[in-house]
Amino acid sequence: MSDEKISVEISELPNLSNPQLICGLPGSGYVGKLAVDYLIDKLQAKQFANIYSSSFPPQVSIREDGTLDLVKNTLYSAKINSQELIFLTGDAQPVSAQGEYALTDEIINLCKKLNVKKIFTLAAYITGKFSKSPKVYGTSTSSDIIKQFSEYDVSTMNRGNITGMNGVIIGIAKRSSIPGICLLGETSGYVIDANASKAVLESLSKILNITIDMSELEQRAKDTEEIIKTLQAQAASKGSQEQIPQFRPSDDKSLGYIS
Amino acid sequence: MSDEKISVEISELPNLSNPQLICGLPGSGYVGKLAVDYLIDKLQAKQFANIYSSSFPPQVSIREDGTLDLVKNTLYSAKINSQELIFLTGDAQPVSAQGEYALTDEIINLCKKLNVKKIFTLAAYITGKFSKSPKVYGTSTSSDIIKQFSEYDVSTMNRGNITGMNGVIIGIAKRSSIPGICLLGETSGYVIDANASKAVLESLSKILNITIDMSELEQRAKDTEEIIKTLQAQAASKGSQEQIPQFRPSDDKSLGYIS
Amino acid sequence: MSDEKISVEISELPNLSNPQLICGLPGSGYVGKLAVDYLIDKLQAKQFANIYSSSFPPQVSIREDGTLDLVKNTLYSAKINSQELIFLTGDAQPVSAQGEYALTDEIINLCKKLNVKKIFTLAAYITGKFSKSPKVYGTSTSSDIIKQFSEYDVSTMNRGNITGMNGVIIGIAKRSSIPGICLLGETSGYVIDANASKAVLESLSKILNITIDMSELEQRAKDTEEIIKTLQAQAASKGSQEQIPQFRPSDDKSLGYIS
Amino acid sequence: MSDEKISVEISELPNLSNPQLICGLPGSGYVGKLAVDYLIDKLQAKQFANIYSSSFPPQVSIREDGTLDLVKNTLYSAKINSQELIFLTGDAQPVSAQGEYALTDEIINLCKKLNVKKIFTLAAYITGKFSKSPKVYGTSTSSDIIKQFSEYDVSTMNRGNITGMNGVIIGIAKRSSIPGICLLGETSGYVIDANASKAVLESLSKILNITIDMSELEQRAKDTEEIIKTLQAQAASKGSQEQIPQFRPSDDKSLGYIS
Repeated sequence: MSDEKISVEISELPNLSNPQLICGLPGSGYVGKLAVDYLIDKLQAKQFANIYSSSFPPQVSIREDGTLDLVKNTLYSAKINSQELIFLTGDAQPVSAQGEYALTDEIINLCKKLNVKKIFTLAAYITGKFSKSPKVYGTSTSSDIIKQFSEYDVSTMNRGNITGMNGVIIGIAKRSSIPGICLLGETSGYVIDANASKAVLESLSKILNITIDMSELEQRAKDTEEIIKTLQAQAASKGSQEQIPQFRPSDDKSLGYIS
Repeated sequence: MSDEKISVEISELPNLSNPQLICGLPGSGYVGKLAVDYLIDKLQAKQFANIYSSSFPPQVSIREDGTLDLVKNTLYSAKINSQELIFLTGDAQPVSAQGEYALTDEIINLCKKLNVKKIFTLAAYITGKFSKSPKVYGTSTSSDIIKQFSEYDVSTMNRGNITGMNGVIIGIAKRSSIPGICLLGETSGYVIDANASKAVLESLSKILNITIDMSELEQRAKDTEEIIKTLQAQAASKGSQEQIPQFRPSDDKSLGYIS
Repeated sequence: MSDEKISVEISELPNLSNPQLICGLPGSGYVGKLAVDYLIDKLQAKQFANIYSSSFPPQVSIREDGTLDLVKNTLYSAKINSQELIFLTGDAQPVSAQGEYALTDEIINLCKKLNVKKIFTLAAYITGKFSKSPKVYGTSTSSDIIKQFSEYDVSTMNRGNITGMNGVIIGIAKRSSIPGICLLGETSGYVIDANASKAVLESLSKILNITIDMSELEQRAKDTEEIIKTLQAQAASKGSQEQIPQFRPSDDKSLGYIS
Repeated sequence: MSDEKISVEISELPNLSNPQLICGLPGSGYVGKLAVDYLIDKLQAKQFANIYSSSFPPQVSIREDGTLDLVKNTLYSAKINSQELIFLTGDAQPVSAQGEYALTDEIINLCKKLNVKKIFTLAAYITGKFSKSPKVYGTSTSSDIIKQFSEYDVSTMNRGNITGMNGVIIGIAKRSSIPGICLLGETSGYVIDANASKAVLESLSKILNITIDMSELEQRAKDTEEIIKTLQAQAASKGSQEQIPQFRPSDDKSLGYIS
């Protein structure tokens, strides 16, 4: 047994035959998490499992009603047209390399049980400058998938590394013969970037052949940024370095992608 | 078996039917530890268990009589009026995330064995500025408890994270269906803050419906601060960076709370 | 079972009777990896195993065709004249001390299975200044081997430490009675140093009594340096600190050797 | 099984009835290691065990004859007058808290097997200034032993922590009912301090009621300091930050003691 104590608490396994998994964990610019949270909301996806790990940051998150919950990852399921989708999102990524590998092993085991046929991880492609019309970059375990990228306005990456869960999930998926795709939205890396999330979602929608109403996404992100600016101003006036806005990643791990 | 080797050495289990656990581990401003140490003293609580862990800082603490003891956490029990109380205090918190989760698992297991019905963690709410009449903030796993906060002069938190053992204990307690409450005393974060401890103890006393004589608490803290100032002055004159006053947390882990 | 989850995936064990293992993992100046990658290419060595470890950096590497692969180490085999050779190279070294010991245990176990009679690790000897004709330093578990160093233009080290896999592999090999040799090419430590690799390969060729055409090695390294300079310039103009050229070590671990 | 893989390789258990263990591991000022190495030399103590651990720094040490060995701790035994002594010394201390606890568990298990009746750890008491006649401080698990300190020119500590193996060994020894004593020689912390080692050895000799010729100790340390100064000068001229003199601790862990 490994040192990372991970417990997967499943309320009810969804009844799906060949689902695809879309992962949006907190990371740079919240590009992936914002996108997946939006899909969960728009598709009214149903929560079916929580994952707790001793390599998550040791803390609880306080909700708007004052109650709290241990840091966790959560799985949802939804159907749209003929597509069966599973979503993975959460409060944080593990704090150690071994924690990431161990959590991924659990996720891939669950994927096998659910007969997952393809895995997408949504991530940020950091450029350090602001872009009006962010590009979407992609990489995959399958060269057949890469050949189709141009049909979906996805630019193929041809060097570099993808660090953190977004990379490890598709790397380990490959070893279990589950095709994996990472879509990365171009972003400055400085702010929560709804534009990048929107660009990633547009490419993803084309790949999945589904239609998502994007109208609320940009507005929601603007609201979130306002809240964060206010919080940061308050934090600064209080002199505390520990004021972390609710929507930022809960650990300092940067998720860098390389052009 | 996990990598954290933890041993709980129980001298004699207290004979209690439905106790409540009050946790005051070392952290920012020593708010929680000072409060619980004071309760242990005032209620003449009886030590009944020591907990050792390989994820505590690897060191021994020297006592006033020259003898030494491995860094540990300690459990005490006391009765006041109809209330049965258990106290958790100690020299340090674990140095790693996994160590915190593993230690908390042991504590919650012991709570189940002792039929603990509610858990309080006492913590600091850091503001970066000094306050004459510190407020007490609260969060809980139960919305019923949160509704009663206003009766006890406790302000409900509605965002942020609680890091370290104070958060993990109530987060894991929730998963074992033991209600948890975190009370946080407003403090600058710069000094050992008896005022914050006193404010937290006053709210706790109201919630528990017990009466505690607070007269010695403020004086004790003043004395402690004098000792620390003297020690720090000596350390500075000696040029050593390793002179750590006896009452400060033994690790650098900051326990930040977010408004 | 240890916390490091390591899996050795062998496609087909090579049919060798008494091979020697040559290790060239990424490290300072890429001296060792460049040398072993060159040998693999020139001798058309055949890949026969991949090693994955949860203590490798948690990331995937993107290849030129856009596909990706989990960070791994790889083993190759080749024959030249009467010599049977095995090569170990890879994307990274483990991120923790325990990860290095655990990976080395797996490698030494495989060596025993393959009846490996001698192990070479190729490394960098950092001097901080550029040298036209870099020296080659050596150390060994066997004093008989050290006596022969002068025949091969290898200067014997007589103090210091060798850190990282290059040290641990021969240290643990010694405990399994497999003779080990570390050859270190003098290098500034500032750039990918083909000259140092060439010097190490020349000494190694003499020891193994084989002939390797070195003509492409220096040109290849010059090309690589050009690519890296271009990438670094792009990264600087983009303001990103996470742009890491493809041929640099994927972690920050420095592999220092002491004169 | 814990994550720390430790192997204790015993060549031959010494035939002793009630030995005392003297520990001198590398640390600040090399006070403890210098003292124990000197005793091993003067008493012609016989090596009987090596201890390897995956939480030691991952490196090999090169000896004067060019051969190398994995970082390890070593045990020796000797008899002088009626005293049976065991010595623990080594190249390094573990790099993690858990590594220190796990190694100490192995050492204490061996102590039980060898019927060890008392354990001494020799350490440095850092003051940041140079002292002509360094004092010796002490702490113990036993108040009876502390009462005798004044007879041996040992000043009793009455606050602070002892970090690292010097603390953990006597802390865990106490839990196994083996009395433990830590003797700390006053030292600046800036240099290898033979004077501090000499002071500690003088107090230890009084406690053990043995006589040790100290004449070579100070000269040996002077020689070592000369070597180190030369090495450091060479290192500086080479511009390398990784030049570490052979006699300094092989990791950055500072072993601080608090007055």
